[in-house]
Amino acid sequence: MKTLEALDACYRDMPPVAAMGIRSAGWDGRVLRLQAPLAANVNDKGTVFGGSMASIATLAAWGLLTLRLGEEGIKAEVYVADSQLKYLKPLVADLAAEAWLDEGTDWDGFLRSYRERGRARAQLVARVLAPDGSPVAEFSGRFAALRAP
Amino acid sequence: MKTLEALDACYRDMPPVAAMGIRSAGWDGRVLRLQAPLAANVNDKGTVFGGSMASIATLAAWGLLTLRLGEEGIKAEVYVADSQLKYLKPLVADLAAEAWLDEGTDWDGFLRSYRERGRARAQLVARVLAPDGSPVAEFSGRFAALRAP
Repeated sequence: MKTLEALDACYRDMPPVAAMGIRSAGWDGRVLRLQAPLAANVNDKGTVFGGSMASIATLAAWGLLTLRLGEEGIKAEVYVADSQLKYLKPLVADLAAEAWLDEGTDWDGFLRSYRERGRARAQLVARVLAPDGSPVAEFSGRFAALRAP
Repeated sequence: MKTLEALDACYRDMPPVAAMGIRSAGWDGRVLRLQAPLAANVNDKGTVFGGSMASIATLAAWGLLTLRLGEEGIKAEVYVADSQLKYLKPLVADLAAEAWLDEGTDWDGFLRSYRERGRARAQLVARVLAPDGSPVAEFSGRFAALRAP
C-alpha cells in the first residue's frame, strides 16, 4: 500500500473501523495522523470510549508501518504483536491520533531482516490528542511484517 | 449497576460498542463473559480487527469491576487507567472474551480504600478466546473507581 488514499480505502473496508469513522488526516513521510468523530466513539460517560482510543492508536501505528513498507516497494502483511496503552485523561472531543517509528527502531535492520527472512518486527509509538494538542493517551506497540502469501 | 441486563443496556448505549455487537454471554459472580460477531469486527485480512480485541477485553474487565462494585451497593464511575495486550494468533470466528480480578488484587483493600477515600485502583485480567477455548489475546489492565459526582 503506497498512498494515503489506498490506506483510507482499507480503513473504510473494515466494518468496525468504518463504524468508528476513523480516517487519515495527514502523512508527511514520518508521522501519520488519523482522526475520528466523537459521536461515533462516545461511552457511557459522554467521553471517548477507551476501545476507540486503542483502535485509532493501533490503526495509526499499523498504517504508518504499512505506508513506510509501501514506499520501499514492499507489500507485506502487517500484524500487531503486542501493545501498551496509558490513558492520561478523558476526552470530550473528536479524536486525533499520530504515530511514528519508535526512536529505538533500526529501520535499516528491519528492512534487511524482512528482505532476508520475509519477516521483521518494529516498535511503534502513537498518541491520541485533544484538540489543543495535549496527549490524552500514549500507545506503544510491537508490529510484525510478514511476506504476503 | 447491579445486573447483567443493566450492563448490556449500557454497552448498547455506546455507539462504538453497539457497532461491534459486543454483549454479555455469562456472569457467575467471578468471571464475566462477553461475545461479539466476526462480521462486525473483521479487518483487511478477514480476521478479527486488533482494536475489536482490545475493545472487548477492555469492556469485559470494565464490566466485571462495575458488576462487582454494584454487588457491594457501590455506584462508582469506573475508568481504565492503562492496559497491556498481547496478540497470540489471528482469529477467524466470532469473539468470546472473559475477565476476572487479577489474583494479586486485594478486593477487601480495594473496597476499604474506595469507602474511605472515594477512589481505588484494581488490576484486572481478560482473555479473548477462539471457539475451541484457546486464548487468542491476553489483556491486563489497571482500572480506577471514583465516587460518582
